[in-house]
Amino acid sequence: MRVLGVDPGLTRCGVGVVEGVAGRPLTMVGVGVVRTPADAELGHRLVAIEQGIEQWLDEHRPEFVAVERVFSQHNVRTVMGTAQASAVAILCATRRGIPVALHTPSEVKAAVTGSGRADKAQVGAMVTRLLRLSAPPRPADAADALALAICHIWRAPAQNRLQQAVALHTANAPKGRTA
Amino acid sequence: MRVLGVDPGLTRCGVGVVEGVAGRPLTMVGVGVVRTPADAELGHRLVAIEQGIEQWLDEHRPEFVAVERVFSQHNVRTVMGTAQASAVAILCATRRGIPVALHTPSEVKAAVTGSGRADKAQVGAMVTRLLRLSAPPRPADAADALALAICHIWRAPAQNRLQQAVALHTANAPKGRTA
Repeated sequence: MRVLGVDPGLTRCGVGVVEGVAGRPLTMVGVGVVRTPADAELGHRLVAIEQGIEQWLDEHRPEFVAVERVFSQHNVRTVMGTAQASAVAILCATRRGIPVALHTPSEVKAAVTGSGRADKAQVGAMVTRLLRLSAPPRPADAADALALAICHIWRAPAQNRLQQAVALHTANAPKGRTA
Repeated sequence: MRVLGVDPGLTRCGVGVVEGVAGRPLTMVGVGVVRTPADAELGHRLVAIEQGIEQWLDEHRPEFVAVERVFSQHNVRTVMGTAQASAVAILCATRRGIPVALHTPSEVKAAVTGSGRADKAQVGAMVTRLLRLSAPPRPADAADALALAICHIWRAPAQNRLQQAVALHTANAPKGRTA
């Protein structure tokens, strides 16, 4: 199973591709960050994120995309941007018929560290260990994207297969009506 | 000047096209609502909104798109969806090089009724009068979209021309960097 994890953000959108199955060692296929300039207009930033995500989808052909579920508990302005960046990532994947899963930050932390309240350093350390990297990926958004992908591979494999089957059947359904 | 107003929402995305210039009677070119089923997956809803907005842009070729600026002051779940729907509308316009303006709800209300705290009925009544319609557009999201377009035509015409010139020059700029 090949999963693209996306840690959405307007300024830094973390992206990471992980391959593997639950219960076996995982492999990092790629990691990076889609950046947009903070002083650019919102529309141009969203177009740049779309182009960046499309490149990652073209290059790595993931079977699933895992995106962080956005909550409105932080800074209002940041959250709006995060929601908008996540919309672009979800849109790009769905247009291609790739199933999208949303995971909360605490689900991701719990999956890779065992604690839903782990800090960034702990998540980075576990991502490094689980993917057998020589150093934690930088910036933290990139590590978080890999953690999202790992979380997705480890959570409910049966549910993933079902979701993939449904997505394949409804990829070309009109007007967004789905099963 | 032809403006597409968009009142963003996942369930009902109001759209309205108004033509005219400040100081002269305005004309409604079209009005409607892009709807997506509440029980569909988020990705499919965003794709349906993209298709709907694209149809409106194809059919009416607006020179500007005016989108309601989203605030996080209401229900958290609704605001996330509104931010995501607005991202899709902004993305569609910017990809075509159409300048996008964001107006707050109070700016729009003040523009069409004279009060930033006007209620829905008052906005609907003024939209009906200003566009010489026989009845207020339904649902309220459609009327709000027309009000956004009117607000845009009336606010800072000089600024609009500048923004349009900049957008034309940067429409094909790489990586979303803008002037």
